Amino acid sequence: MSRLDSFIRRLEAQRACLDRAAELIRGLDGFVLELGLGNGRTYDHLRTLFPDRAIYVCERQVAAHPLCVPPREMLILGDMRETLNAARGWLGGRVALAHFDVGTGDAARNQALAAELTPRIVPLLCPGAVLASDPSIDCPDLETLTLPEGIAPGRYHLYRRQP
Amino acid sequence: MSRLDSFIRRLEAQRACLDRAAELIRGLDGFVLELGLGNGRTYDHLRTLFPDRAIYVCERQVAAHPLCVPPREMLILGDMRETLNAARGWLGGRVALAHFDVGTGDAARNQALAAELTPRIVPLLCPGAVLASDPSIDCPDLETLTLPEGIAPGRYHLYRRQP
Repeated sequence: MSRLDSFIRRLEAQRACLDRAAELIRGLDGFVLELGLGNGRTYDHLRTLFPDRAIYVCERQVAAHPLCVPPREMLILGDMRETLNAARGWLGGRVALAHFDVGTGDAARNQALAAELTPRIVPLLCPGAVLASDPSIDCPDLETLTLPEGIAPGRYHLYRRQP
Repeated sequence: MSRLDSFIRRLEAQRACLDRAAELIRGLDGFVLELGLGNGRTYDHLRTLFPDRAIYVCERQVAAHPLCVPPREMLILGDMRETLNAARGWLGGRVALAHFDVGTGDAARNQALAAELTPRIVPLLCPGAVLASDPSIDCPDLETLTLPEGIAPGRYHLYRRQP
């Protein structure tokens, strides 16, 4: 499989997981939290899926396509290891969907960052909230969900915070 | 359609066109020419499709994934407006497949660059050669080919140099 093939599969898996997550949280109140803005393509997909929800976006420094930059008041700027701690006061238990894809292009580094951030992300989730993630997440409070049809195990990840 | 949707469609169209091009030039001798390396994903797909062909790659400055950097002797480094002119002496009429995707992220700029480069690319193609391109190419020496099934017109482009 070429890198073009595997990139397409990863993007298709990401989209299928976000679309599935949108169904799963349909009856659940709460914010959407995008952890990593990047070029803003996924953020654009999230705002298409969730026109009626507030979408908060964590990013170190905005470098997205001009049409995909969130409003200033929805941006949580800085190192997520710090900003997620600071956000806990007002965001704790109020997020219905979090999406984690830092996309440094280095799988081992993504995985290490995910491990470091997991204890900061999980307390933000409300009971029943969904976490969609590129790296796998290991946390006893999270139940692993079945992936949408056609997505190979491990290509993307879906979790639900235990009620 | 979100930007994630349209990005996935563009990549799928690109891959389908390259796969189709590989069938079309099966009986044709000649080099492969990648015009724009970028992150090297498409180059990786090309070397999977054409393990037995020499693949030349034009790029201003290499910034690809380390596993997708072509051998030094296959790189044509510099501004394509100059390097393609210089390459005409040894590459003229010897290319069986050229792929053009500069991907500046700005459609109008890509289109303008394509127009500027077309008279430098076409003389490199052998009779019957295929040109796959993200921007449309306007040239009387090129016949427009039907796109693979499922690819909407205009999403990607396939041309054949008149024999």
